[in-house]
Amino acid sequence: MARKKTANQTSSKKSTPSPRDRRTLNQLAELADTVVTAAEKRRDPHLDIPTRSLSNVRYNQTKKILEMGSNTTRRQLFNLSQAKSFMQTILVASGTQQLIEQGKTTSIRGLYYLLKHTIEGTREETFNEQSECDPVIEDAEVLLNSLREELHLYAQKRGDMVGELVLHDSGDEIDCSRMGSGGYGIPSIVEPEVIQFKKCNARFVLHVEKDTVWQRFNEDKFWRKHRCILTHGAGQPPRGVRRMLYRLHNELKLPVYCLLDNDPWGYYIYSVIKQGSINLAYESRRMAIPGTRFLGLRSKDFDRCKLSDSVKINLNDTDRKRAKQIANYPWFAKKKPWQKEIQQMLSNGFKLEVESLISKDISYVTEEYTPARIAEKDWLD
Amino acid sequence: MARKKTANQTSSKKSTPSPRDRRTLNQLAELADTVVTAAEKRRDPHLDIPTRSLSNVRYNQTKKILEMGSNTTRRQLFNLSQAKSFMQTILVASGTQQLIEQGKTTSIRGLYYLLKHTIEGTREETFNEQSECDPVIEDAEVLLNSLREELHLYAQKRGDMVGELVLHDSGDEIDCSRMGSGGYGIPSIVEPEVIQFKKCNARFVLHVEKDTVWQRFNEDKFWRKHRCILTHGAGQPPRGVRRMLYRLHNELKLPVYCLLDNDPWGYYIYSVIKQGSINLAYESRRMAIPGTRFLGLRSKDFDRCKLSDSVKINLNDTDRKRAKQIANYPWFAKKKPWQKEIQQMLSNGFKLEVESLISKDISYVTEEYTPARIAEKDWLD
Repeated sequence: MARKKTANQTSSKKSTPSPRDRRTLNQLAELADTVVTAAEKRRDPHLDIPTRSLSNVRYNQTKKILEMGSNTTRRQLFNLSQAKSFMQTILVASGTQQLIEQGKTTSIRGLYYLLKHTIEGTREETFNEQSECDPVIEDAEVLLNSLREELHLYAQKRGDMVGELVLHDSGDEIDCSRMGSGGYGIPSIVEPEVIQFKKCNARFVLHVEKDTVWQRFNEDKFWRKHRCILTHGAGQPPRGVRRMLYRLHNELKLPVYCLLDNDPWGYYIYSVIKQGSINLAYESRRMAIPGTRFLGLRSKDFDRCKLSDSVKINLNDTDRKRAKQIANYPWFAKKKPWQKEIQQMLSNGFKLEVESLISKDISYVTEEYTPARIAEKDWLD
Repeated sequence: MARKKTANQTSSKKSTPSPRDRRTLNQLAELADTVVTAAEKRRDPHLDIPTRSLSNVRYNQTKKILEMGSNTTRRQLFNLSQAKSFMQTILVASGTQQLIEQGKTTSIRGLYYLLKHTIEGTREETFNEQSECDPVIEDAEVLLNSLREELHLYAQKRGDMVGELVLHDSGDEIDCSRMGSGGYGIPSIVEPEVIQFKKCNARFVLHVEKDTVWQRFNEDKFWRKHRCILTHGAGQPPRGVRRMLYRLHNELKLPVYCLLDNDPWGYYIYSVIKQGSINLAYESRRMAIPGTRFLGLRSKDFDRCKLSDSVKINLNDTDRKRAKQIANYPWFAKKKPWQKEIQQMLSNGFKLEVESLISKDISYVTEEYTPARIAEKDWLD
């Protein structure tokens, strides 16, 4: 089976790098240069890595996203406690350089295997566990001011898309309005080098939490009736879905509405899409969408939609604790409607899933609930 | 936003049922008739439900799939301990009838919400938890001799597909060779009423365990070079992916090769694709693919591929226990190559992930490993 043929195609062939790849390669070269220069001048080689801890994260009130502060942590080669992580950082940088030069991408697990080896003449492993490699990848991202995707690393691939959009993906034209019941699987890397938007008839994006809810909206062809794009992220959306939403919002100027469960987890998903996550604050600049709107479910929906007691799910202690934490997030703390929303869930004493609306009618969520919320502009910001 | 328009479209409108839907509706009507007839004749209404326990599961040596035996369990209306589950069964049957008549589908969570209510004049709920409803759905499947999908119920949607196949999905033409980096998201219901195969240039199906590995194969356009269809199921493949593989194998006569991790979980995934699962043995007839081949990773690959010690992952006690259980499955117990395979993993003392091949080269798995195994016909049956 074509083995001879493939044996001739060495995978180390260099592809022509895109402008963005060239920029990343330059940054990698600069990084290497600082080490070489220091060595030549007989100075200690070191890296100043922006600090990725909570103490260095702040909420930018103007941009309305989470940002990293300006603190950095110095990592030195000639320091017994820092030498290994210094070398790991350089190793990760050289691994991503290899990926970019070969025009290939891999997962963070793949990069770990690519770089893991016993250091010659020792019994020391470059990395013992993937958990040792992952934070170094994050260091490389902030150090190089590059998204993970720009370093040719992909995350888990989850989530699907349908709707009034035609795009090009790696040269193939994808008409998201002709994707049947299955939909277009959102790639984990959706950067402009891979995905270009070609034609958009959509007026907004509806992002739902779960694939099961997405299937209901797709089966009812909600996106055709209301001229929109429909996405889901199978829970907390992975990076690819967040970047896709970001690009749809910023490049195509589409409002993004989220339909999530009325529970602390739903609030949290919204918070991450809107402001970014605390752990990966440095990504917010190119992932967070401050303009995202929370369409529901709302704590008032039990009364508003006249739901039956049967669909209530009692809050547990964890729910109550999480709800209070989220209410104190700086971007929720000063917003009265959000305080009221979370307070009402707590005083309700129960949470509600989007699927509970099916107790009204199978298509209540697509034919009544969602169109009404958008028509009335009744959402939380 | 088009609210008035949608208000006129009542969701209870009846669609024209497909021949298969008519068959299922007839079975539902027959079920109801037995209850009515019994009542009219003043006999105790009862249902004889095929027993879904391990004691009633057997491995059919001829068909090489797991099957249910002929034991049934009687469920009576006038029996204090059975009355509730009798009524729940009828309720689930009437819920699926409603779905089929409306031409709509929903998730098992959706059906639970659809049917959950307080019984009039009592404080009794039809179902307290979804965990009470799920086994009743399985009862309905065996009772009606229908797949869950035929009852218009969908499972979680996971997994993507690309390759040399053109299909129709709900009237849309999907060319799986023009799906970019994202791929076609495999629907959870892939029955012939929804999905029709139109044109196939593929010679086989390659099913890989993880989305990250799938991305590697897709990026290298393996499916174009080797004329195949490439699928993944994000771990243990959901029902939609298994049914899709079944249809590709049986209708298009394509061999199915699996590329899974060299660990007990990889063996188990293969076992379920091939013979069916013990818990849902009644589905094997229309889900299991006895002809599926296990391409790798194999326990001999550490030596064969000259991998480095760095990529070994030590087996833990659970791994060893699971491996021995799997070796004793009737469909593995009598196969010497499988006994040797599992025994070698145990004596190796370590497991291997598909991603570990990246330590040879980023594209070793697509350019060397997989083509060589297929060319040499070196797989386990």
